[in-house]
Amino acid sequence: MFIKVLGAAAGGGYPQWNCNHPNSRLARSKTSKALPRTQSSIAISLDKYKWYILNASPDLRQQLWDNPELMPSPEDPLRYSPIMGVILTNADVDHTAGLINLRESQKFNLYATKRVLDVIGKNSIFNVLNPKFVKRMPIELDNVFNLHDTEDTFSGISIKPFAVPGKVALWLEDESKGKNFGSVEEDTIALEINSATKKFFYIPACASIPDWLLTKLDNSELVFFDGTLWQDDEMIKQNVGIKTGKRMGHISMSGEEGSINILNKINIKRRIFIHINTTNPSLLEDSKEREIANKNGWEISYDTMEISL
Amino acid sequence: MFIKVLGAAAGGGYPQWNCNHPNSRLARSKTSKALPRTQSSIAISLDKYKWYILNASPDLRQQLWDNPELMPSPEDPLRYSPIMGVILTNADVDHTAGLINLRESQKFNLYATKRVLDVIGKNSIFNVLNPKFVKRMPIELDNVFNLHDTEDTFSGISIKPFAVPGKVALWLEDESKGKNFGSVEEDTIALEINSATKKFFYIPACASIPDWLLTKLDNSELVFFDGTLWQDDEMIKQNVGIKTGKRMGHISMSGEEGSINILNKINIKRRIFIHINTTNPSLLEDSKEREIANKNGWEISYDTMEISL
Repeated sequence: MFIKVLGAAAGGGYPQWNCNHPNSRLARSKTSKALPRTQSSIAISLDKYKWYILNASPDLRQQLWDNPELMPSPEDPLRYSPIMGVILTNADVDHTAGLINLRESQKFNLYATKRVLDVIGKNSIFNVLNPKFVKRMPIELDNVFNLHDTEDTFSGISIKPFAVPGKVALWLEDESKGKNFGSVEEDTIALEINSATKKFFYIPACASIPDWLLTKLDNSELVFFDGTLWQDDEMIKQNVGIKTGKRMGHISMSGEEGSINILNKINIKRRIFIHINTTNPSLLEDSKEREIANKNGWEISYDTMEISL
Repeated sequence: MFIKVLGAAAGGGYPQWNCNHPNSRLARSKTSKALPRTQSSIAISLDKYKWYILNASPDLRQQLWDNPELMPSPEDPLRYSPIMGVILTNADVDHTAGLINLRESQKFNLYATKRVLDVIGKNSIFNVLNPKFVKRMPIELDNVFNLHDTEDTFSGISIKPFAVPGKVALWLEDESKGKNFGSVEEDTIALEINSATKKFFYIPACASIPDWLLTKLDNSELVFFDGTLWQDDEMIKQNVGIKTGKRMGHISMSGEEGSINILNKINIKRRIFIHINTTNPSLLEDSKEREIANKNGWEISYDTMEISL
């Protein structure tokens, strides 16, 4: 299985458009110590010809440009895309808005929970995805589904979506007043991706790591995990936000209750942080936080990172 | 007045994600004869510190990265953007979707006709623009409005929107069945941009050039004009589409009824094509069509092009 990181940053990307945090300033100075990153998304393939995208970030057009294998090759037809399908883990703008780039009556399969597909359906901006060409395939928690190509042939990849602790997308909060954020199970899903011989996990958002999740991830070959924040209150401390990680549905990397420490309890061959926020010091190549993450076996993902399983 | 071209291409950009037209292939080969272009948008400013954006393309985040003057400077506050306002000429995805990049509770003014603001309002994805921070300012055809900064101070720039021959946004067609496309006057607007001493026109879509428009544009210093297609039927002839330019609301550059010939009748000091489609041969630096356009006094815009009036 081949994996390409299309974008490694959290919502808004790194740097964010209106952020003047020292990390953002460093990225804008174009030092090699602070690589800019687009919004989180990965592409998967068994053959490097047919690709499936996990989450469609607003930066998708730029991400395709940066990853030529996702654009037509000279020998392809006049209208063609190697993108056979898109799988959404929630309805967040940074995971869905990129769909509007995939227009022009091109076939592909769109996999998401009914709740997420409903949100897409209610926003007429997504009408650019012509239903004659784009099949909307509802998926269900804990039910394995097979990825098919645009000729309806099984790709060899199947996915099991499962709920992880989280919260609803920020732009839907108004509609969910009175409910507890994160109370709807379908709102934040993680993906277990399987080929005949390989398996990995994609978990770009996760508010906490209960024991059942530890058991599930134990002895796995590869886990992409929520790397939004280093410290739960770093956005507040640094005066760039008013919310804690917990409030936003993201566990922090550091601390006794952080992901590094908790996931140290289990065996994972390769562990990679993704969905990294501008404020996270582990973004910087020479930070002590990067060193701590690395020493604990973690990689910090970056755009165009390639992995072969 | 300072103008920066943020994006010079038509919807989908150049190359388009699923287009394998020879022009797109050339752009992907990264030859200097075929510069890639993002989706059409320009930024205007009187002082190079406070900027206003005409149309918010889906590529806006990349466009800000490519134009550092539109990002915070080191001396700016922790949360800041030099973008004081966005003006929309219609509800097309390639003119509106970029708004979702301007989130995170940052003040700016959004100017559009009531009809366009209604579409934005009905799409919950745009709820990321917090109404506490983003003022939605309805504008009216033929009524001059002043651009204000986020402190509500007059910028020195005022704009007169006016209807030009066009059609409704493709993704709204279902809702307008039974009406003739282009029958709603507000759907395609052009902008006359004025400072105390300078004036120019921004017309990224226009289906034909009636006499009144010729009169209006005569003796102007600068006109950005719809450069979608070279020939009305080029997308059909080249097997990449089924619609004529006229059907899509775009006059062609060439031909007796084309924009080059018709606008040759009047005096315009500087004439620049923008909103250029992948199939347009004038995109190529060494094409005979580029030569014809240039000989007739036209420039083909490109991303990061700078103009000072």
